[in-house]
This record gives sequence, structure tokens and C-alpha cells, in this order.
Amino acid sequence: MSADSSPIERVVVDTGADRYDILIGRGLLGRADIWAGLPKARQAVIVTNSTIGPLWTDALCKALAPHYAQLSTVELPDGEAHKDWSSMNRIFDHLLASTCDRKTVLFALGGGVVGDMTGFAAGCYMRGVPFVQVPTTLLAQVDSSVGGKTAINHPLGKNMIGLFYQPRRVICDLDTLATLPEREYLSGLAEVVKYGPIADAAFFDWLEAQLPALRAREPLALAHAIRRSCEIKADVVGQDEREAGLRAILNFGHTFGHAIETGLGYGEWLHGEAVGCGMLMAADLSVALGLLDPGSAQRLEALVTAAGLPTRAPDLGLSRYLELMGHDKKAEGGHIRYVLLERLGQARVTEADPRIVEQIITRRVELRAS
Amino acid sequence: MSADSSPIERVVVDTGADRYDILIGRGLLGRADIWAGLPKARQAVIVTNSTIGPLWTDALCKALAPHYAQLSTVELPDGEAHKDWSSMNRIFDHLLASTCDRKTVLFALGGGVVGDMTGFAAGCYMRGVPFVQVPTTLLAQVDSSVGGKTAINHPLGKNMIGLFYQPRRVICDLDTLATLPEREYLSGLAEVVKYGPIADAAFFDWLEAQLPALRAREPLALAHAIRRSCEIKADVVGQDEREAGLRAILNFGHTFGHAIETGLGYGEWLHGEAVGCGMLMAADLSVALGLLDPGSAQRLEALVTAAGLPTRAPDLGLSRYLELMGHDKKAEGGHIRYVLLERLGQARVTEADPRIVEQIITRRVELRAS
Repeated sequence: MSADSSPIERVVVDTGADRYDILIGRGLLGRADIWAGLPKARQAVIVTNSTIGPLWTDALCKALAPHYAQLSTVELPDGEAHKDWSSMNRIFDHLLASTCDRKTVLFALGGGVVGDMTGFAAGCYMRGVPFVQVPTTLLAQVDSSVGGKTAINHPLGKNMIGLFYQPRRVICDLDTLATLPEREYLSGLAEVVKYGPIADAAFFDWLEAQLPALRAREPLALAHAIRRSCEIKADVVGQDEREAGLRAILNFGHTFGHAIETGLGYGEWLHGEAVGCGMLMAADLSVALGLLDPGSAQRLEALVTAAGLPTRAPDLGLSRYLELMGHDKKAEGGHIRYVLLERLGQARVTEADPRIVEQIITRRVELRAS
Repeated sequence: MSADSSPIERVVVDTGADRYDILIGRGLLGRADIWAGLPKARQAVIVTNSTIGPLWTDALCKALAPHYAQLSTVELPDGEAHKDWSSMNRIFDHLLASTCDRKTVLFALGGGVVGDMTGFAAGCYMRGVPFVQVPTTLLAQVDSSVGGKTAINHPLGKNMIGLFYQPRRVICDLDTLATLPEREYLSGLAEVVKYGPIADAAFFDWLEAQLPALRAREPLALAHAIRRSCEIKADVVGQDEREAGLRAILNFGHTFGHAIETGLGYGEWLHGEAVGCGMLMAADLSVALGLLDPGSAQRLEALVTAAGLPTRAPDLGLSRYLELMGHDKKAEGGHIRYVLLERLGQARVTEADPRIVEQIITRRVELRAS
């Protein structure tokens, strides 16, 4: 099957105020029809990083050249450690030095870090210019590029400063995943796995069956996994863009996961690795509170294991775990709110007895030591 | 007339997505009813500056204490030079160190700089928390606190990084104007004067008649001037929150004015002083293009003169003027767009022949030399 004739999957995100397409397929960077109909402007600016930029910027420039008279690129340093104001300012410096106006369209070419920062910069530059997500990692294609969450990190917490700001289109070219390092790919798989337990038992079954194909990056399996992930996310975001309630279920595994990421220092564990382990801790807690049957938790653990993700928690110390979880954005009035499972396919957000939480953390940390 | 029994003026801002009150009157910081019905939260944080903080923070704390269990204050350095990311970060550091959650309400107590930064911080903290404007300068009461424009400056331009983010209420206590230095007060008067030419000929007439009372800060004249200014601004913002068209007329005098402010360095001329002179340059340009009769331009110049504002432009050099105006957010594709007058009470946005603009600038600069 050649890339040009391969099918394109389309998922619509509709928040009420904004409506846009997620397009998924092979060879999209080289297909002219994919890039038509975006906001018109004199200038477009590609924001990318030092890893992805050399691989894909030329192809994106070629795709955009018919639509924008002036094209330029900002290349940011790669990595979560650079998801900060200093990188944002590099974008702003470039936009202003190039006299970019209010109609300038930004294109985020890269993973979640590039997407989050480009979206935040687009939301703030002259109080808002349009932007397009071109995610090049599995994690970004199934999660961070969809739904309009943008942010930078603060020393006291991840993604603490940001906006809800929706892109005009999300373009997921499966070909860009081919060069993704294995560890990053598996980290993305953690977010795919997440959509089963929180929203779709049948997708969970499918994932159990198709995990070998997904680990082999087979295009048809990958296209289905990305489409179904985006559909579930689009459905949730369409009902609750600003995380007043339902949207919080997308953070399944993230309360524990963020504590692991921040506690170890960004980059020690990848986001999806922390979320993979965090999902198991959330499932443990669900079982301990009598919400979830132990068999379902075991199935989830088997799937996370099969996805090559860590299942043992790092030893940050109990008080550090609790402190870091208290900084979670879902926390309210100092009370930590957990996304827990009632069954595979059904999540809910609730508080939990801190003593039980402590037991759960201790057990996952001890498992590591054993 | 005691403050407690004095009338309260109320103006409603309705952008479609958001609706809130502007309350105007004497002694509002001390009146319990004014502070009821705001968003509930465990914590509220007052953001102020080193000049206003010592004067009014205690009164505001007293007003808020019945509604919020935890109250704290962030005091920023005073002045436009500090309207930057470093000051924003002081707010974020405080919010995170105090484990403020997503419901925390921010109160901006101060002038336009405090209001713009507090609004921007509220819009970004955990992707958005509610905030309330408590403007303590005339400029902020009639202009910057109303309408949801928030921003910080960038070395290459004023207010380049920011958001449209509406407050939950605007509370204008006339008593806070009593301590305002004369030069700042007159700078605020420039924005009051602005509303006549762009939208309301009758208000222009009233201003001509009442200027001595306004310069004497007579409360009844002041209350009317602030209410009418806020009404006009609320009406424009309600029709065009995001400056797709109409809202640009509120920038009458600002294209030239921003060039003066930035060209001299922030703080050399106050914002309203630059706008006062900028309005005359825009009126000159309107006359030169045959849009406005010279008699109306003369009336405007007489009013700006009577308001004690500068009418002669500083000599930045012609090319510097044009360069700085090209950085204006209204510029599109490198073309500068001017807010011009068709008559007193009617503005429109248009481009202009650069050679005529050069003549206008040269004339206002030479007038200064003569």
C-alpha cells in the first residue's frame, strides 16, 4: 500500500466554541489536500526542536509554501527540561523580530513539549494567533496535541502555567513515528492503554489482542489505536473542555505519575512510563477501596507489563509522594482527588483516605525492592 | 454626603461568553455588599504594588476576610518597567508556594500594570482561575480594568504577550483616586477624553464644559465621567471582545502614542500623556486625509491642552516612529492601521499614505521645537 493511496482517518473535536479535525494517516506531510483550508496569512512559523527539526522541517516547509508567502522556523532545545519560559521567549523573540502580525499561523512540529509550548505561545502572542498541531510522537498524537491543553512547567509543578487553547487542526503523520526511539514509543503506548480502562472495555480487549502488532508498529494497528484514542479524547473534551468534571478522567494514572516524574526530576522517567506505573497505583487504590475487582487490576498490570512499561514505583519517600501529589492541579483545598476505576471502561474522580494511599505507594515501592 | 450613603453606579459588561459588573462609587472598599457574590474559594490572593499596597491592602483584606479563609498578598515593584515575566513569576511563585488551587480568586489592587499582570496570571495559573479588578488609578478605572485585555511587555513592543481574559467584577472606589499624583491623574483624564471623539459627541461637549470640575476631582463629575467612559467601553467590548473590528477604535491615539512611549523608554512619558499627544496626531492625520474638519481637530487640541496634557511630540526621528508603529498589534502584513476620526463622535480604522503620516509626525515634532 503506497502512502498516497492509504486511507486517512478523521476525528472531529467539537468543544462548542471550537471545532477542528484530527487527521491520521501515512505520508500526510507530503499530501497537498491535507494543508488546504487553514487560516490564511502572510506568514507562518514552524516551531520544532533540535531532534525533529532536521528530519521533518523541509517536508513541512514544502507543504506550507503554497499557502504562506513567508515561512520561518524556530528550533527549540529538545526535552521536558526546556519546557519553560525561556523557550517560550525564544518563540516570542522570533515572532516579534520577524514582525509577525495577529494573523500569523504557528505550526507545532514535534512531540508534546513542542506542542504545549507552541500552543501556549500562540494563545498569548498578541493575545492569540491560530496554530496547528503536527505531532511527531505517539504520545503527542494520542494525547497532548488533542484537546487544547497548553502549558509550561514551574519548579513547583508540571504544566502549572498555561491555557486551554484549541488548535485549528491536528495532523498525525504515521510516518513520523518510524524514527521514534523505542523507549519514547512505549511511553506513548501508555497513553493509548489508558483509554481502555477509563472509557472503553472493548478497546481494552482489542489492545490485549493487538499489543504485539502495536509493539511492532504495524501501520493498520497503529492507525486504529490512534484513531480510537483520539475519538475517546475528543468525546471527553467535547463534553468538558475546561476540566470542570468529566475531563479529569483523562488524568488516570497522572496524579501518581506526575509525582514520579517531578520527584525523580523531569526526564529520568518518561511521561508515559510514569503514567504506566501511575495507572497501576490508581488501580491498586481502586481495589483497596473496594471499587474495582482484583482480576481487572491484574489484567491492567499484565497489559502495562506487555507494553514494556515499568510496573514498580521509584522510592521517593512517602512524604515526598504526598507533597508532590498535593501540587496536582486536580487538588482542591489541599485535598488530593484521584481518578479511580469502577471497572475496566469506567472511571470516576474521588478523594481517598490518605492512610490507604500510603499503603498503596509503599507496596509499589517495596515491589521494586523485592 | 457620607461615603456610605453615596450612590453606586453600575455598568454591565456582556461579551456573550462572560457578563460582569463594573461598580463605581465612594467608599466601596468599606462596603460589605460590594464584595458579596464573588466566586467562592478557600483562598484569595491580593496582587498589588509597593505604592498602592501600603495604602489600601488593609482595607481590602477587611472586605474579603468574611469570604475567604486564607488571604495573602503579593507586592510587585511599581511601574511599567516591571510589567514583565519576572513580575508574573513572582505571582506564580507565591500561588504555588501557598498551594493555591484552581478555585483561588486573585484580586488586582492597583493601576493598569497591576491589573494587566494579575489578569494575565489569573488566565494562565492552572489554565485559569477567577480574578477581580480593584483599579486605583483613573486610567485603570476608565480603561485598562474593563474589557479583559491583559498583557506584559516585550522589549520589542508593549503588551505583546497576553490574553483576552475577563474579570468577574470591576470595583472602582473613587476614594482611591484622592492620593493619585497630579501627573498620573491627568494621564487618566486622557483616556476619558478619548471616549468623546470616538463614540459620543454629547460626552465631548460635556467634557469641554466640565473639565475644570474634573481637574478639581469633584466627585459627582468624576463619577459621571467614569461611568460614561465605562459604558462606552463596555458597549464596544460587548460587540467585539477580541478586536476583530470595532474594538480597535478604543486605540484612538494609541498607534502614535505607543511609538512615543516605547521610543522614549517606558516611564519617560506616562501612557495617557503619550495617548493625549497621539490623539492629536491621529486627528491631524484625519484632517490631512480630508476625513475630519479642521475645527473639530482644534476643539480636540483645546480639550487636550485644558486637560494639562502634552500636545507636542518628542523627536524620536521619523524612521524610528514608523518602525515602532509597525510593531503595533493593529498592524497587518506590515501595513499600519490607524484609528481616525470622521467627526467628533465617529471613528474608523484605515491605512494611510506613509508620506502623509511622515508629514504629520514632522509637524508635531517641529511644533515642539518652535
